[in-house]
Amino acid sequence: MTSLQSTLDALKLHFGDRLSTTEAVREHHGHDMSRQPTRLPDAVVYAENEDEVARVVSACFEAGIPVTPFAAGSSMEGHTIPLKGGISLDLTRMNRIVQVNHEDFDVQVEAGVTRKQLNAHIRDTGLFFPIDPGADASLGGMASTRASGTTAVRYGTMRENVLALRVVTPQGKIITTGRRTKKSSTGYDLTKLYVGAEGTLGVITEVTVRLHPIPETIASAVCAFETMRGAVETVVATIQSGIPVARIEFLDEVAVEAANRHAGLTLKLAPTLFLEFHGSPRWVEEQSNTVREIANEFGGSDFEWSTRTEDRERLWKARHETIYSNQTLRPGCKAFTTDVCVPISRLAEAVLAAREDIDNSFVTGKIIGHVGDGNFHVGYLIKPEIPEELAEAERLAERLYQRAMDMGGTFSGEHGIGISKLKYLRREHGDAVDMMNAIKAAIDPKGIMNPGKLGQVE
Amino acid sequence: MTSLQSTLDALKLHFGDRLSTTEAVREHHGHDMSRQPTRLPDAVVYAENEDEVARVVSACFEAGIPVTPFAAGSSMEGHTIPLKGGISLDLTRMNRIVQVNHEDFDVQVEAGVTRKQLNAHIRDTGLFFPIDPGADASLGGMASTRASGTTAVRYGTMRENVLALRVVTPQGKIITTGRRTKKSSTGYDLTKLYVGAEGTLGVITEVTVRLHPIPETIASAVCAFETMRGAVETVVATIQSGIPVARIEFLDEVAVEAANRHAGLTLKLAPTLFLEFHGSPRWVEEQSNTVREIANEFGGSDFEWSTRTEDRERLWKARHETIYSNQTLRPGCKAFTTDVCVPISRLAEAVLAAREDIDNSFVTGKIIGHVGDGNFHVGYLIKPEIPEELAEAERLAERLYQRAMDMGGTFSGEHGIGISKLKYLRREHGDAVDMMNAIKAAIDPKGIMNPGKLGQVE
Repeated sequence: MTSLQSTLDALKLHFGDRLSTTEAVREHHGHDMSRQPTRLPDAVVYAENEDEVARVVSACFEAGIPVTPFAAGSSMEGHTIPLKGGISLDLTRMNRIVQVNHEDFDVQVEAGVTRKQLNAHIRDTGLFFPIDPGADASLGGMASTRASGTTAVRYGTMRENVLALRVVTPQGKIITTGRRTKKSSTGYDLTKLYVGAEGTLGVITEVTVRLHPIPETIASAVCAFETMRGAVETVVATIQSGIPVARIEFLDEVAVEAANRHAGLTLKLAPTLFLEFHGSPRWVEEQSNTVREIANEFGGSDFEWSTRTEDRERLWKARHETIYSNQTLRPGCKAFTTDVCVPISRLAEAVLAAREDIDNSFVTGKIIGHVGDGNFHVGYLIKPEIPEELAEAERLAERLYQRAMDMGGTFSGEHGIGISKLKYLRREHGDAVDMMNAIKAAIDPKGIMNPGKLGQVE
Repeated sequence: MTSLQSTLDALKLHFGDRLSTTEAVREHHGHDMSRQPTRLPDAVVYAENEDEVARVVSACFEAGIPVTPFAAGSSMEGHTIPLKGGISLDLTRMNRIVQVNHEDFDVQVEAGVTRKQLNAHIRDTGLFFPIDPGADASLGGMASTRASGTTAVRYGTMRENVLALRVVTPQGKIITTGRRTKKSSTGYDLTKLYVGAEGTLGVITEVTVRLHPIPETIASAVCAFETMRGAVETVVATIQSGIPVARIEFLDEVAVEAANRHAGLTLKLAPTLFLEFHGSPRWVEEQSNTVREIANEFGGSDFEWSTRTEDRERLWKARHETIYSNQTLRPGCKAFTTDVCVPISRLAEAVLAAREDIDNSFVTGKIIGHVGDGNFHVGYLIKPEIPEELAEAERLAERLYQRAMDMGGTFSGEHGIGISKLKYLRREHGDAVDMMNAIKAAIDPKGIMNPGKLGQVE
């Protein structure tokens, strides 16, 4: 504790008011959007540039003090919760757009820039950053959790879209990983190692991501189905036809009800697909005609189209806000939200089994999915303070994960590992976990970066 | 040496004739397609399955004997040359297609399967494996060098197409990295760490790659230009328009002459683009009309179309064989072939400067490029036994690399590092090289895997 206090004192000389130990500030940095219990850091430091990040990390390395990076706080799995205390390193003030290379379709931003801020900034370039996890997450956080969302089916995840990074290593050195070129074959792919490392190998300070041309035409549609199987089979057939849909989202009846109540939509209570097509007018027409034919075969209603920007935005906002709609479905509840991803050939089986598990349980839940990737979310609507409900949600989640793994899938499609999923890591990766631990030990020998999470798994 | 001999004796008991120390066999495994001098392994072992790979690696780990994986031997940078002797581990007999998941657009193959073998095997599924580096390389080798080629502009490189791997670690353990799902956010991305690791972190024994639907229509075209700048500017404008060309290759006049002489084509001697479009008939028409308009603006001739499969194959075969055509350009020469990649906005400048360097030199050379990615190859036509010529090629190559790096690019777009490019690694990556070395030391503490290459760089 002496060592902690003297380090904080030394940092205070540089950071002044930007180092805070007040209860309210620590509380804000002690939780995220997950159901994980709050854990306060000993102090919060607001860095304004990468040299300041290096200063904090160097001091913590010297004294063996934990450092946990923090920005938007929108993690779904407790990534930013400082399990072992120490310093929560707040990067929200590092929100400069460093360089837009519009001719190269890429942009370099500081880690605290959020996706909405980025898209607002580049609005006039004819380009956009497509990755959309719902929350207005920071680019650094999105890289660290290998985030994706509704458009990954067309544009990929952060894995495919991060070209290069600036990173402060656990020893406080500043390095650049990768180049912004579309290809490079020079050395180990450190960029991809940091994408998904959840802040356990250092602090990402700058992110270079791909941008994509804003499509000439964007058309969204909603299609209701008689059965869940019909909706999911439509997705599978669409993907297997090689049609490059830009979004193809599934909502079960409970999720549709949530969207109606929370966002004031008047959708029919039925298993439903939200779709979006991008391209030239002729090509969008061609894609959507093909998908309409497929949907009709599987009992889908006619498509209801939204081509006006405001209608489309309302639709996707409603889709995203299903996550905040739990209160309207069951007052006082908090969703136990999780996600898995399976090969597309197993999607119908996986979704139907997840629904059947819920229907056979005393807790209720909703299923929503980025189904074009085989990725879907289950939200169990529980009151976590009731132990039986929490235990039941955990039992259902474990069945969900195991089934996904048995199908060749994964127990986390896009939310990452964070805290509660750590115990499943070895079940999916076996001895490869030892290699992850060895890499962590080599890069962060004192274990100061976001300790208690990835890289230190039994 | 006792230790080596006793290990070989012990392995011989299991492998019998599949462990060879004959001169001819060792010679075959002592060189590749690069200009690097031959270096013989002490022995060659032909493994037939991953357990046998683990057996060899375990024995070598025990005794501290170098292991260098080998398959097609088509490396351009000396990757498979056993710099420190030891065992060359031949994987060509591990050529089974393990599982085709045609509904999921993926396939699992042993590391020795070649890309042509794979495409022949899946011919009837309606799917194909697009990555085409020219040579009929093995999938394990392509993963290890992060290979790409003519179609990367549309379908990505091995980085984007390898979903999962089976790997024998330097300690002889068998691990699986990744899942075959389109997304996963569970732990460090070991798959991407092995893609491009050039056999220095273990032996890839199995590769799971994405497949893609065979397009309904494929149309190839050739377009000659008045100037190099016109050809390159057409590429830049095409990419910046967001048109998803499937291939867009540049050949300078020297390369066109090589293609004519070697493959019996009768192309006009001028800077030329080879193009290919994939999609539905309407969409191919739309894409090609747009590119034709762009080309016309930059002084391009009318497109000469090849829509018949045999004509297309002849065209692309000619393109690939430009690499073998050096003898026809200058009898007795051997090309010093290298490649760089730059941001597309700097492509014209980079290509023109490379041409100017050659024109100002006493050695001649050709430029060919996967220009849609900003990636191009320069082949200096030298007689390497003449020291002045070799020194001049090295001088020109160094200028090429430095210029690419100064433009935000990379000194190797797709050939990898191998041997001769090692000395440039720190110039591009700075202190990140220390992290690469730390990862190598953690995963391969005895340094037995392909020693003297990546991961052990000063």
